[in-house]
Amino acid sequence: MSQHNNAFNQKKKAILDEINSLQPDLSPKGTIDELCLPIMHLINSHDDMVTTSSCSGRISVFAEGSKMHNGLQKVGGKGEGGKWLFVSHDNNNVIGWLETISKEGINFVETNIDDSTNHLDGGNRFILYKYEPFILHVKCRDFEMASKLYNVAMACGFRESGIGSNNLVAIRINIKLDVPIGYIDENTNDLKLFVPKDYILLLDRLTLSKFEENSRKMQELYDRIRVEIIEVPKSESSKVETKEERRERKMREGLAKQRIAQEQKMRNLSIEKEIID
Amino acid sequence: MSQHNNAFNQKKKAILDEINSLQPDLSPKGTIDELCLPIMHLINSHDDMVTTSSCSGRISVFAEGSKMHNGLQKVGGKGEGGKWLFVSHDNNNVIGWLETISKEGINFVETNIDDSTNHLDGGNRFILYKYEPFILHVKCRDFEMASKLYNVAMACGFRESGIGSNNLVAIRINIKLDVPIGYIDENTNDLKLFVPKDYILLLDRLTLSKFEENSRKMQELYDRIRVEIIEVPKSESSKVETKEERRERKMREGLAKQRIAQEQKMRNLSIEKEIID
Repeated sequence: MSQHNNAFNQKKKAILDEINSLQPDLSPKGTIDELCLPIMHLINSHDDMVTTSSCSGRISVFAEGSKMHNGLQKVGGKGEGGKWLFVSHDNNNVIGWLETISKEGINFVETNIDDSTNHLDGGNRFILYKYEPFILHVKCRDFEMASKLYNVAMACGFRESGIGSNNLVAIRINIKLDVPIGYIDENTNDLKLFVPKDYILLLDRLTLSKFEENSRKMQELYDRIRVEIIEVPKSESSKVETKEERRERKMREGLAKQRIAQEQKMRNLSIEKEIID
Repeated sequence: MSQHNNAFNQKKKAILDEINSLQPDLSPKGTIDELCLPIMHLINSHDDMVTTSSCSGRISVFAEGSKMHNGLQKVGGKGEGGKWLFVSHDNNNVIGWLETISKEGINFVETNIDDSTNHLDGGNRFILYKYEPFILHVKCRDFEMASKLYNVAMACGFRESGIGSNNLVAIRINIKLDVPIGYIDENTNDLKLFVPKDYILLLDRLTLSKFEENSRKMQELYDRIRVEIIEVPKSESSKVETKEERRERKMREGLAKQRIAQEQKMRNLSIEKEIID
């Protein structure tokens, strides 16, 4: 076995030891999202892949920090001192989050959009309501493995996936909400809500459907990785491809192409050439 | 020159001919966004890269189509018959878009969030107000080139970039708005707005700042590609790396790592191991 392969094996072992230990991991939350465990275990059961970071999908409410930096306004930056007012990976916590954080002393003041908000532009510190989907990073032993995983993910609709320069596959999908719901009054530090609370409830219901869509896509990805990567007997991968296998591979590759074409269509990208060869 | 290299050269020539022709391209809009031209020309000036599709960034208002599919509700899908009510790549068209489309016969009816909207969930046909940033696909001659371009993009903060399985680099950044502003009344087909028009104006101002941030990032990317990829004399790339060049390369690679770490931090990803080796 080459030195390169040994390095991958060692790294994989260290990562698995960490996953299996009861120690908190490197994330602020300190634990792996439970909903990620099945797909992580599946992927890690393959000799040539190891998961390195993950999020199962979440609702978050983020208060942007100060955008002043060295006396210059940093429009759009997350800023110094931004903070999460609420984060949850559990769809059971969605309805009622506003009341929950109120009890913890974080209070929103309802404001009408009027003269006081009419001056707001992108330079203000906004409060953002977000839904962010499942994301998973998988380190692969070689480019061939990375490429196979990438293709399976793309074929499932994880169209924002990509391979890094070091065989690290990022699996991403575009199931998002990104809504400014208020701002921070610079004079009083009040959290001002410029949408009615009923609109928040509507966002919450929409978020529930995003959680649902997200978990359906995670399941689809799980199933395909199982069938197309994990359960392929080792002997088969070195065998000459049968007619049937070739048909299936072509179908899979075709699906990946379709998904990319779909992305182009949804964005109305200016397309010089079919981007797949 | 190998057959593979010849194939790339031929493909590149065909694409450039198309870009330079006056024929409409394959996108619905039929033309390349003007703001993309400088970076496209820069990239295409390099022998080993060719741009294949692009969007300079845009505001869009999208009415979701029917989510019924074979009698089943397809939650979250774009659906049949979804349509863009408004799309523009020009920040001058942002303020006043609502009036513009009203004149064209597309009318919103303001609704209070009350009993009639309280039943809304993710299964409804929503009207989405979006800002989507610059995106660019670049076909590279080989993985080395793809990897170099990927690293430069990541180091500039285009953190959702990735390499496809065929040396196609997708350059993506997360500058987004994704806000449900209304829904389609299934009984009357009315476009119902459940946020006040003043909230739309506030979104518009935020969108202007997104356009600004987006064009600043495009410029940053342009500058770095120019300095780190295009203006490197050919003789140098085959020379042994000098101490100074090594220092610069290490700094660039370090920046790329930082950006990935930043992504992890913003998402609170559960991290088993530093995902870069």
